Amino acid sequence: MQNRKVIHQGAIAIEDKTITDVGKTRELKRKYRTCYEKIDAKGGVVIPGLINTHQHAAMSLLRGYADDLPLQEWLEKWIWPVEKHMTAQDIYTGALLTAIESIMGGTTTVNTMYHYTPEKNEAKAFADAGLRGVIGHVCFSWRKKEDMRALEDLTKSWHNKADGLIHTGVDPHSPYTVDPEYMQELKEVRKELNQKYGSEETPIIAHIHVAETVDEPEKIRRAFNVQPENGVMEYLDSLGVLDQHVVAAHCVALTDKDMTAMKRRLVKVSHNPISNLKLASGISPVPEMLGKGITVSLGTDSPCSNNAADMFEVMKTTAIIHKGVNKNPVLLPAEEVLEMATIRGAEALSWENEIGSIEVGKKADLAIINFRKPHLCPLYSEVSHLVYAANASDVETVLINGKIVMENRRLTTLNVEKTIEKVEKTKNSLLNKLKQNNSKSQ
Amino acid sequence: MQNRKVIHQGAIAIEDKTITDVGKTRELKRKYRTCYEKIDAKGGVVIPGLINTHQHAAMSLLRGYADDLPLQEWLEKWIWPVEKHMTAQDIYTGALLTAIESIMGGTTTVNTMYHYTPEKNEAKAFADAGLRGVIGHVCFSWRKKEDMRALEDLTKSWHNKADGLIHTGVDPHSPYTVDPEYMQELKEVRKELNQKYGSEETPIIAHIHVAETVDEPEKIRRAFNVQPENGVMEYLDSLGVLDQHVVAAHCVALTDKDMTAMKRRLVKVSHNPISNLKLASGISPVPEMLGKGITVSLGTDSPCSNNAADMFEVMKTTAIIHKGVNKNPVLLPAEEVLEMATIRGAEALSWENEIGSIEVGKKADLAIINFRKPHLCPLYSEVSHLVYAANASDVETVLINGKIVMENRRLTTLNVEKTIEKVEKTKNSLLNKLKQNNSKSQ
Repeated sequence: MQNRKVIHQGAIAIEDKTITDVGKTRELKRKYRTCYEKIDAKGGVVIPGLINTHQHAAMSLLRGYADDLPLQEWLEKWIWPVEKHMTAQDIYTGALLTAIESIMGGTTTVNTMYHYTPEKNEAKAFADAGLRGVIGHVCFSWRKKEDMRALEDLTKSWHNKADGLIHTGVDPHSPYTVDPEYMQELKEVRKELNQKYGSEETPIIAHIHVAETVDEPEKIRRAFNVQPENGVMEYLDSLGVLDQHVVAAHCVALTDKDMTAMKRRLVKVSHNPISNLKLASGISPVPEMLGKGITVSLGTDSPCSNNAADMFEVMKTTAIIHKGVNKNPVLLPAEEVLEMATIRGAEALSWENEIGSIEVGKKADLAIINFRKPHLCPLYSEVSHLVYAANASDVETVLINGKIVMENRRLTTLNVEKTIEKVEKTKNSLLNKLKQNNSKSQ
Repeated sequence: MQNRKVIHQGAIAIEDKTITDVGKTRELKRKYRTCYEKIDAKGGVVIPGLINTHQHAAMSLLRGYADDLPLQEWLEKWIWPVEKHMTAQDIYTGALLTAIESIMGGTTTVNTMYHYTPEKNEAKAFADAGLRGVIGHVCFSWRKKEDMRALEDLTKSWHNKADGLIHTGVDPHSPYTVDPEYMQELKEVRKELNQKYGSEETPIIAHIHVAETVDEPEKIRRAFNVQPENGVMEYLDSLGVLDQHVVAAHCVALTDKDMTAMKRRLVKVSHNPISNLKLASGISPVPEMLGKGITVSLGTDSPCSNNAADMFEVMKTTAIIHKGVNKNPVLLPAEEVLEMATIRGAEALSWENEIGSIEVGKKADLAIINFRKPHLCPLYSEVSHLVYAANASDVETVLINGKIVMENRRLTTLNVEKTIEKVEKTKNSLLNKLKQNNSKSQ
């Protein structure tokens, strides 16, 4: 990405999963005369597939179930009571919906944190949809034994499986739900799992919520009687759990010492501006982090706090929100934001050797955007339109791992209508269970 | 809107331009047995067409031409040098593009401020597209005579014309480009034009930029040697130019006294959050204005400071930004934001007797949104999805003034492909003129 550029009248050659050539169509036509399968991207712009570094894919089942509420009421009275009725099958169904929405919006890799169950799970859903992803199992102090079994099974069954589409993560939920000892134990577990199932090329990463709200130090103190005086990230560093394979979601309420620790440990950030605004968490100091050379990628968060899985929306919001709140119109220019949604996302997931840019040797994860639309006209700058004017629905064709997973907006891997029906049924069954449970408890 | 509600399995009866009945499909089927033309909205949600209360429609020609720049550099080095080469035909073409984009995104009324020329203009473009709009001529101190001719011709030729689709406006550009005397004169002109061409039912409105940036009082002082000590709106009130037919765009930097004056004079606000963030103007105190009972509507601003004409985006941004910056998740709930984009917009344009809600006797300005999409699934609340999850491209069919202007995403009034080609040609011609001009001046 040192030499990032826009190639006009360009073409990409792909063999099996891999990009083997990139250049002018004229030149590539001369080099590859014999019959290849061709995708005509005329009038379109080809970009590296977008990388969403913070999701809870199964929670699409709760999209729009509860909005405009204070955080604790939202969680305790609305989200958690339904979530406890979700079966493994429901989690699979919800993740399938997110996989479909992601692909249809040009997202080719999703980092998701949820409850892992061996029979049906988010990994299976992503693999069935042909979506690349890092599947994490979320860990809490109150279920250590269960977590250990889940992590072992998840990593063994899925890490670097499904043709290399799936990686896995060890995901401590947050510093206020995972006690200091368990936090350290999870780092050890990750190390061990890496030795058994990972490699330097395909590491098992950690994915955690950090500093989402300003009262997080207080929540940690109340939960574990420790005092993160210099900030939550600095506290995690004092536990020795930070390293270059940690993706920290949100990072809204950071101290200077937090940022120093992040820079030193090469911690990666997933910035989730839409979720942070909707849940009223605040605004992450992204310009400061970028100024310190910290890697910042982008995420949507779950579809019940966003309520979409749309990385185009996240790009636009990222590009405008920091200008607006800092009253500085040159912050976060379009080029930088597009990088955050692609190559920085790949770096955040320790996957930049294979994805995040259109380069020879990388996997063919590509989205073709149809620019023959009134709202993408006239055309002065492709990058400006991608960030400020394009929508998820402008994505026409998507390749992941060299395979066409969507062509002219039709998914090749799944029946979208059937999934929609299944999701509606799942919703009704969840609401019924909730009703029965409520009438029992009365 | 006192009794706003969602009708499931509902139907709407329309005769000519007007809504004649609203109710359950079952009941309407019984009442209207004889053959009507039917539009099947199954799986869809019908909403009042969205109302965009601040646009400069012709400026779509400059979408993405210059971004991520300081405001003055952006205006002086980029926007103004191109704008001076725009012909009347170019203005028509640009407005046509905005009309298409608006309709395709479910917007049925647009309030636009630009330079009026008799031969070709934004009014003609809107009428040709079948889009409802308030067409204003923008007035500056430096061209009073020209303005007077333009205002007279615009109002005479277009006010309440094109089957009632078009209203007109007297648009002082801003308090820092229109001197105090001219500001008062323009109020008189509006009164006179109203007597000649308007009526109580169809008033000619005023549309002005106010308090877009924090340095506006200083700009006024430098331009006209007057000191708006208590705020810009209070200054306008001291000139006696505020009334219930004034739409003030932006209203970012307001004092308490400003808001008191706005409430007293029933001034209407057009909130433009995306433009305000992108240009780094800041964040309008919308919750405070709503708390004081001021009418706040929504606008996109021009496609060169947004860079879209997408009211769905504006709704979502409005719903989340005030929660985020005020750290209060209950502010601006979805229901309120949907009202701002519909009935409040109608009120802002003094047009609420005819548009802004689905009510018997109002004009049939309707958008049908296709909800059979993965990102609008599952369905718990229609209003939540409309604000937080739906996109412009989910709009399937649009009626304006009882006429189908888009059906299954195909415009019935215009050839979209030809307009796109025309816009690209216009862009090239503008860039050529700019180049020639630059080489001359060297």
